[in-house]
Amino acid sequence: MKNSEYRKKMADSWFSYLQTQICKEFEVIEKGKKKFVKRNWYKKKEGGGTSFLLSNGSIFEKVGVNKSTVTGTFRKEFRSKILGANKNGRYWASGVSVVAHMKNPKIPAIHFNTRFIVTSKEWFGGGIDVTPSFEDKKEKIFTHKILKKICVQNKKNYIKYKKWCDKYFFLPHRNETRGIGGIFFDYEQNNWNKDFKFVRDLGSAFIQITKSIIKKKRKLKWKKKDKEKQLIKRGRYVEFNLLYDRGTKFGLNTGGNTESILMSLPPLAKWK
Amino acid sequence: MKNSEYRKKMADSWFSYLQTQICKEFEVIEKGKKKFVKRNWYKKKEGGGTSFLLSNGSIFEKVGVNKSTVTGTFRKEFRSKILGANKNGRYWASGVSVVAHMKNPKIPAIHFNTRFIVTSKEWFGGGIDVTPSFEDKKEKIFTHKILKKICVQNKKNYIKYKKWCDKYFFLPHRNETRGIGGIFFDYEQNNWNKDFKFVRDLGSAFIQITKSIIKKKRKLKWKKKDKEKQLIKRGRYVEFNLLYDRGTKFGLNTGGNTESILMSLPPLAKWK
Repeated sequence: MKNSEYRKKMADSWFSYLQTQICKEFEVIEKGKKKFVKRNWYKKKEGGGTSFLLSNGSIFEKVGVNKSTVTGTFRKEFRSKILGANKNGRYWASGVSVVAHMKNPKIPAIHFNTRFIVTSKEWFGGGIDVTPSFEDKKEKIFTHKILKKICVQNKKNYIKYKKWCDKYFFLPHRNETRGIGGIFFDYEQNNWNKDFKFVRDLGSAFIQITKSIIKKKRKLKWKKKDKEKQLIKRGRYVEFNLLYDRGTKFGLNTGGNTESILMSLPPLAKWK
Repeated sequence: MKNSEYRKKMADSWFSYLQTQICKEFEVIEKGKKKFVKRNWYKKKEGGGTSFLLSNGSIFEKVGVNKSTVTGTFRKEFRSKILGANKNGRYWASGVSVVAHMKNPKIPAIHFNTRFIVTSKEWFGGGIDVTPSFEDKKEKIFTHKILKKICVQNKKNYIKYKKWCDKYFFLPHRNETRGIGGIFFDYEQNNWNKDFKFVRDLGSAFIQITKSIIKKKRKLKWKKKDKEKQLIKRGRYVEFNLLYDRGTKFGLNTGGNTESILMSLPPLAKWK
């Protein structure tokens, strides 16, 4: 097996493993009373994916855990925008993405994604970010502390990734950030083994952060007007994902599975 | 006054008149128990608009009636996409747009827009289209019959505009039409007086169609599962407007008023 094939295999199987782990941990949060529903999809002869969806839980109003591994050829007009795709447009991509929309409006929505992309170049990308409907300074500090720790342990530039996240998850038409940020990175191609370890650590950090945030807030009382506020915030989430998100555009532009790509959209959203 | 200035003035004042008329008629539908809330906005030194919003009515769950008249200069990368904007990118635009989201899921959402654009060219554009959550052949036939009549009376190509509408209001990622269509036209620049009359007739037709559709269905009973179906359909509406709608992109790209542009979004939408 060529080194490149070996790296693809490693990344692909790690993402599958992580997906299983996330689903298992989230079912524990639901005390086993709600289970994920699995759905496979195929991109004819070019891979496919598996999506897990849990709806109407006591904690998760809707959470999708997607993993896909696909190949293909970028359309010509798209190639100049993708690192290493100028030559022939061929790509291989594998990744996990999770968006959790919570029933309790006091618990923030949490998004996580890691991916490994191969064109004539190879790189990792990903991130974690948190979108509360109610400000909570402690929660923000806690989240960023963990993310900083993971970055420092892996000799990654936390400040750079934090800024990148703030810049990326921004709605210019609202002049608002999507949430309280987190980290976001792309084109990570220094040292494959080290980068891959960072990506694995980030997967574990996502589970840790999510469990911790939920644990602290699962018993918090909320009122109808709190839910209203969350539904309005979710409207902004929809706006961001459909107007700006590169992952959504990438997916819809490369013949990905619409149901899985749009699993990030909230179960319910409101506009005044 | 130059002819061009005269035409701008005429279009602008007609759109204001039409906006007032629509709001008045819709308040009658609400039996005067709900009123529109007015909001003015300004695009510094480049015009502005007035939006009227009625929420939580007995018929209209949310209806926005927007009118704006703005000027500006298209950014360079945008100019090649706009008729007559290649030279210096200057534009003047005035129009009315209405999106009505109904409380009763048996009554379709209705969208209407007419506009007059001036660059180095001048043209009208617009359309009416209907988005039901439940199929109703009679309603579809009725709507298209009226639209065809208006087109024929004004010597406009109904078949062309109907097809344009079907093509425009299509969600490729879902392989679905947004609704049952209607008519859609742009770059109408044959004979200003005749085109303007067509646009005025279309405004009146919109009021007639809306009143008639509502009258036939306002008393229809509906259940929670019918509302669910409507909320899912509205999710598609959001997807279309944020992913594809040119008017939304035009507005957000030219420094329009976000609240008014996104007034088309439904009050509540759902994703499975």
